[in-house]
Amino acid sequence: MDPVVVLLSGGLDSSTLIHYVRRRLDVGPLHALSFFYGQRHDRELKAATAQAALADVADHRVMDVADFGTLTAQGSVLTNPEVAVPDLDSLSASERTQPPTYVPNRNMVLLSIAAAYAEAIGAVDIYYGAQAQDEYGYWDCTTDFLARINQLLALNRRRAVTVHAPFVSKRKMEIVTLGAELGVDFSQTWTCYRGGARSCGTCPSCAERRQAFSDAGLPDPLD
Amino acid sequence: MDPVVVLLSGGLDSSTLIHYVRRRLDVGPLHALSFFYGQRHDRELKAATAQAALADVADHRVMDVADFGTLTAQGSVLTNPEVAVPDLDSLSASERTQPPTYVPNRNMVLLSIAAAYAEAIGAVDIYYGAQAQDEYGYWDCTTDFLARINQLLALNRRRAVTVHAPFVSKRKMEIVTLGAELGVDFSQTWTCYRGGARSCGTCPSCAERRQAFSDAGLPDPLD
Repeated sequence: MDPVVVLLSGGLDSSTLIHYVRRRLDVGPLHALSFFYGQRHDRELKAATAQAALADVADHRVMDVADFGTLTAQGSVLTNPEVAVPDLDSLSASERTQPPTYVPNRNMVLLSIAAAYAEAIGAVDIYYGAQAQDEYGYWDCTTDFLARINQLLALNRRRAVTVHAPFVSKRKMEIVTLGAELGVDFSQTWTCYRGGARSCGTCPSCAERRQAFSDAGLPDPLD
Repeated sequence: MDPVVVLLSGGLDSSTLIHYVRRRLDVGPLHALSFFYGQRHDRELKAATAQAALADVADHRVMDVADFGTLTAQGSVLTNPEVAVPDLDSLSASERTQPPTYVPNRNMVLLSIAAAYAEAIGAVDIYYGAQAQDEYGYWDCTTDFLARINQLLALNRRRAVTVHAPFVSKRKMEIVTLGAELGVDFSQTWTCYRGGARSCGTCPSCAERRQAFSDAGLPDPLD
C-alpha cells in the first residue's frame, strides 16, 4: 500500500488524528511531518515526536522553516516574540473570526510542503487535523478551504495528492472523546500558545482545550 | 500605495518581470522574494540580488527553505545532487510534459509563502514569472493553476491576496524581446540548471533560453 503523510503539530487534534489514521483507517505506512516555523510554543514538537513514536510511524520529519516565522512576524503573535499572546476573554467578536494568534497563510504553506513531500515519496493522501473551532475561526480550517486546495492539487498531471481532514466538522469536545476511546496519551500533547513550561490555561488555545475536556467530562492530564 | 511582492528567482522570466512591474505597472513599493530551496543552481540567487538592486526594490529577502530540498530530493534532479540533470534532447515526449527537472509542488509552496509574506506586510498583489513554456510544460505554470490558487486565496477573511502572472501566455522569445525593450541586463541573470561556473547550453533550461534569444534575434550575453 502507498505511504500516507500525516501533519503532526503535537497538539490535541493532530495527536488524536495520527492514532485515528493508524487504527481506524486502512492505510499504508505513516509518514509524520512536523514544522518548526518559529512558533513560540515549539515545545509542541517534543509532543509530536512522542506521538509519532506511539503511533509507530515509518518516518517522522521535523522540517525547519524558521525563516517563515521571520517573514510573517509582523502578522502574528505566534511568531513574534515581542508581542504578548492575548487571553481568549480579551478578544472582541471581530477578533474571534480571525484572532491575532492566526499565522498568515500558515496552513496553505504547510499543506503545500506536505503535498510536495507526498509527491516525492509516492504518497497520494495527506491527513491534517483541521477541526470546527468552537471559540473562534480560521479561514484555513474550513471545508471550503479543503475543497479548494484539493481542486488546485487535482491539476497535477502525475498522481494528484488529496488532502483529508476527517475532523473538519468535529467540535473539539468530540475529538477529546475520540482520543480517549483510542487511548491517546494526552499528557504527551501540547496546546498552550504561550510556550511556557506549563500551560497558561487562559490563552485562546488553552481556553478551548479546557472547555473541550470539561464538555467531554474528562480530566486533562496537563491541568 | 500598498506594497507588492515579486517572486524573483534570478532567471530570465522573473528578472524581466520585476523590471516590467517597476516600469510598466502603477504599483507601490516592490518587495522581492527569493528562495534557497536546495537547488543545485543556487548561483541564480546572486543574479536575483543584482536584479533586485537594479529594479530599486524597497526590500529583498532570500528565504532559506533548504529543508524543502531534502524533503523532495527523491522527486527531482534539481534538488538531488546525486542525479545528473539530463539534456533537453534526451527527454522523451512524455517526460516533456513533466520533466525530471520539475520540483514537486514547488510553485505552490513558494506562492503560499509569498502570500503569507504579502499578508504580513499589508500587500494584496503578488507577481510571479510563470510563462508558456515552449519546450516542455509544468502543471504549476498554467492559467488553470493561477485561477485555482486565486480561488483558494480568495477565501481569506481579511484582504485576500491575488497572484498575477503577466507572462503566463507569453513565449520565452517574447519575454526576451520585452526584457530588451526594458533594458534588462541579461548578463546578470542565471538560467542553467546544472549550476556550474558557466552555462552548459544543453540542459532543458539552457536549451530553451538559447532558442528564445535566437528566435528574438538577439545575442545572449551569457553565451
